[in-house]
Amino acid sequence: MDPDAVAKAFVDHYYSMFDSNRAGLASLYEDGSMLTFEGQKIQGSQNIVAKLTSLPFQQCQHSITTVDCQPSGPAGGMLVFVSGNLQLAGEQHALKFSQVMFHLMPTPTGSFYVFNDIFRLNYA
Amino acid sequence: MDPDAVAKAFVDHYYSMFDSNRAGLASLYEDGSMLTFEGQKIQGSQNIVAKLTSLPFQQCQHSITTVDCQPSGPAGGMLVFVSGNLQLAGEQHALKFSQVMFHLMPTPTGSFYVFNDIFRLNYA
Repeated sequence: MDPDAVAKAFVDHYYSMFDSNRAGLASLYEDGSMLTFEGQKIQGSQNIVAKLTSLPFQQCQHSITTVDCQPSGPAGGMLVFVSGNLQLAGEQHALKFSQVMFHLMPTPTGSFYVFNDIFRLNYA
Repeated sequence: MDPDAVAKAFVDHYYSMFDSNRAGLASLYEDGSMLTFEGQKIQGSQNIVAKLTSLPFQQCQHSITTVDCQPSGPAGGMLVFVSGNLQLAGEQHALKFSQVMFHLMPTPTGSFYVFNDIFRLNYA
């Protein structure tokens, strides 16, 4: 399958789950996964989802602007770079989030999980 | 050595070379390296540097705002996420470039080269 299409499908699935059932993101990380959120390093699916569900907003809607994808090496991973906007419920203006990097690794069943995740809000 | 310090040193070295001797960046890529530049995919050190040296500006100065780093897996690689500003000679305002992701891989001599490189200008 086309890696760009796989990356795009993963990103769509990830943000659809983020916007509708944030706790469900636990299924997309594993114990060795890492998130760097605005410089804060967090390891493991449980801790990562605890962070994401504790963000100070409930309802949100992501819209994706760009998805770039490259194979990361012989282990079958993919690097995915995402930019887009984040609309918070009750806020007039969308935030540009622009800076999310995922390193996806294959699972034994042929799907992918997030091994590395780096998030920076775009303050421009 | 502290991975964050290694990543910071690499990024400082990379942009110092970009701003003073862009063709010299060839030494920081290898034949298997990939660059995605604003969605355009380019492979190999020679082609990558041809792209970087053909950008429509001569003198420039990068200033780095954030550097995030994570180990990318058992092969000893590092993912480095960089945000910052790009000042072009003769332009009044700096551009936010904000979106550079490097995947660094170790060399046999103990240094690193860029295996993956994804660049997006920040249009915010």
